Amino acid sequence: MNAPVLPLTAADVYDAQRRLRDVAAITPTLSHPALDQAAGRSVVVKVEALQRTGSFKFRGAYNALAALDRAARQLGVIGASSGNHAQALALAGQLHGVPVTVVVPHDAPRSKIDGARSLGARIVTYHRERDDRDQITAALAADQGYTVVPSANSPHVMAGAGTVALELAWQAPGLTAILVPVGGGGLAAGTAVAAKHVNPRVRVIGVEPETGADTAASLRTGALAELPSVPDTIADGLRHTSPAPLPWEINRVMLDDIVTVTDSQIVRAMASAFQHLKVVAEPSGAVALAALEQPGPAPGPVGVVISGGSVGIGSFHRFMTDPSHWREPADA
Amino acid sequence: MNAPVLPLTAADVYDAQRRLRDVAAITPTLSHPALDQAAGRSVVVKVEALQRTGSFKFRGAYNALAALDRAARQLGVIGASSGNHAQALALAGQLHGVPVTVVVPHDAPRSKIDGARSLGARIVTYHRERDDRDQITAALAADQGYTVVPSANSPHVMAGAGTVALELAWQAPGLTAILVPVGGGGLAAGTAVAAKHVNPRVRVIGVEPETGADTAASLRTGALAELPSVPDTIADGLRHTSPAPLPWEINRVMLDDIVTVTDSQIVRAMASAFQHLKVVAEPSGAVALAALEQPGPAPGPVGVVISGGSVGIGSFHRFMTDPSHWREPADA
Repeated sequence: MNAPVLPLTAADVYDAQRRLRDVAAITPTLSHPALDQAAGRSVVVKVEALQRTGSFKFRGAYNALAALDRAARQLGVIGASSGNHAQALALAGQLHGVPVTVVVPHDAPRSKIDGARSLGARIVTYHRERDDRDQITAALAADQGYTVVPSANSPHVMAGAGTVALELAWQAPGLTAILVPVGGGGLAAGTAVAAKHVNPRVRVIGVEPETGADTAASLRTGALAELPSVPDTIADGLRHTSPAPLPWEINRVMLDDIVTVTDSQIVRAMASAFQHLKVVAEPSGAVALAALEQPGPAPGPVGVVISGGSVGIGSFHRFMTDPSHWREPADA
Repeated sequence: MNAPVLPLTAADVYDAQRRLRDVAAITPTLSHPALDQAAGRSVVVKVEALQRTGSFKFRGAYNALAALDRAARQLGVIGASSGNHAQALALAGQLHGVPVTVVVPHDAPRSKIDGARSLGARIVTYHRERDDRDQITAALAADQGYTVVPSANSPHVMAGAGTVALELAWQAPGLTAILVPVGGGGLAAGTAVAAKHVNPRVRVIGVEPETGADTAASLRTGALAELPSVPDTIADGLRHTSPAPLPWEINRVMLDDIVTVTDSQIVRAMASAFQHLKVVAEPSGAVALAALEQPGPAPGPVGVVISGGSVGIGSFHRFMTDPSHWREPADA
C-alpha cells in the first residue's frame, strides 16, 4: 500500500519560511519553573501572540499572497473571519500591495474590525443568523475576480503556519512532544508536517475545547465528523463544527493524539500566561497551555504553542473573575 | 579640563554581555502601528518583561554574582528589594550556586516573596515604618560575611542593565533616541554608556513618575536632590527619594533629558502594551512607553524599554478600571 499523497510537504513549509524571512517575526520561546512543575517536565512555550497582528495567522496569509500570480494580485483577495485571519490578511495585503476584502459578522468586536480597516482592508459585514458567510464570500469572489484565502483550508496557509514549528525545532531542539491548538486544523497540520520532518519521533498532539472536539471525534471514527451545532466555548476561534478538509487529510494520519480542555482550564492557562510569562493569550490561543494541566504520559521536554493574543482588557477581566472558572472541575 | 572618570565603561557592559550569553534571554523587540501613530515616529519596544524573572534586573544580579571571587561566593550575598531585584538575585544565586538572602518588607506581595523563596532564597522581613532596611542589610552582611548586591548602585549591576541597550542597538540599528525608566538610575546609566558607545549621537532620555522626579530635580540643579517623602505613585519600583550615587555620576553627564509622566499616562501605557503588544507591563515598567504620549521634538525612530512585568491580575484590573486614570489630565 502506498502512503497517501498529502496536500502539504515539508518543502512547502521551507518555501514559506524563505518567503517570511524578514517579514514575519521570529517569535520568542519562553519558559517558567511554575509551568515545568505543573507539567512534571520541561516546557517551552512558543508565543505567536507576539507575531505581527497578534497571531500565527499572519504567516499563512502572507505566504498565500506571496504565491499569487500578477493578475490575481491586481484583482485582490477575499477572506472570511471575525478575528485573527482578517487582520492577518489585511496586513499581508498591505505589504504585498494586494487589495483585501474581509467578510466579518456584523457583531464582531469593533476593535478587530477597526484593526483590519486601519490596515487598508475593505470590510463587508454579514448577519450571523440570516446570511451564509461562505456564500457571500464566494459570490463576491466570483463577481470581482477575487482569490479566496481561507483561514486554514489551503496548502499555502498551512505551510505558513508550519513555519511556527520549524522555528520551534530550531529554538528548542530535542522536544519529545508539541501541543498545538486545533480549530480548522491548519496550524496542527503544518506543525505535524514540519516538526516530524525535522524529528520523525516527535509527538504532535492537538488540543480542542471539550465542547468543540470535532477533530477528536473525526479521529475516533476515521471520518470527518460534524458537530450538531456551533460549540459553546470561550475559545471563539475554535468554534468549528467540523475540521477543514485539507488539514484533516493531514491530521488524520499525522496527529499522534487529540486532547480536550474545559473553559475553566483555558481561563487558568490565560492567567498563568499573564502571571508567569507576562504574555496576553486569548482563549483560543491558550488551549495548548491549558492541556499541560492534564497528566501527560511521555517524559521529555514539551513544546506548547500560544497561538494568539486577541482578547480585550474587559473580556480578559470577565474571564478571570467568573467564579465558575475557578472551581475545581468535577472530574479532577 | 579632563572628562570625569565614570564608574562604568562600555567595556564593562561588553564583559557583562559575554557573561550573560546563553543565560539571560535575548528579549524581543516589538512594534505596532498604533504606537508609531501615537508617537508620530517609528517606535521599537524592547520587552524586558519577557526577561527571566520578569524584569531586566536579572541581568545585573547575574553579572554581579559572576564577578565574585570564590570565597565571597561561598559566603553568599544579600540584597534588599520588595520585588524584581529579589527574584532576580534569587535566580542568579541558584544558577551560580551562591546562597542568597533577600530583605523584604513584611507587607510585600506574597507572590513576589514566594517567587524568591521558590528559587531558594532565604527571606528576611522588616517592618516598613519601624525598621531601617539598609541597616538590617548591612548588619546581616557584616555578621555573616555576605556581599551586598544593590539593585542599582553597583558597577556590575549597571553593566548588566546596559546589555539591554547593546541588544537593542543590534536589534534596531539607527535609533535616534531611547526612552528608559529611571528609579535608582542603574538602567538609565547602563543604557547611556552602552548606547552612546555604539552611537554617540543617540539621545538617551530618562522617564520618571511626576511625583517621584528625584533624578529630574537633581539634573536641574546639578546636585543630588532628596525628595521630602516617599513619592506617591503606582510605579512602586520607582519610589526613590534620591538617585543612587553611582548611577547619578553617570546620568548627570550622559542623560540628554528627563521627562515625567502621570499615573494616568502610566495606566494608559499598560493598556496599550496589553492591547497592541500582547505584553504585561507593570506600572514602573511602563513609564517609558507612557512618555510616548508626550509630543517629542526629535524625528527618527525611537526605542522604548518596558523594564518589567510584575503586576498581579487583580492589581492590573484595578488600575484599568479606576476612572481617575481615564480622565484627560488637566494639563492636556
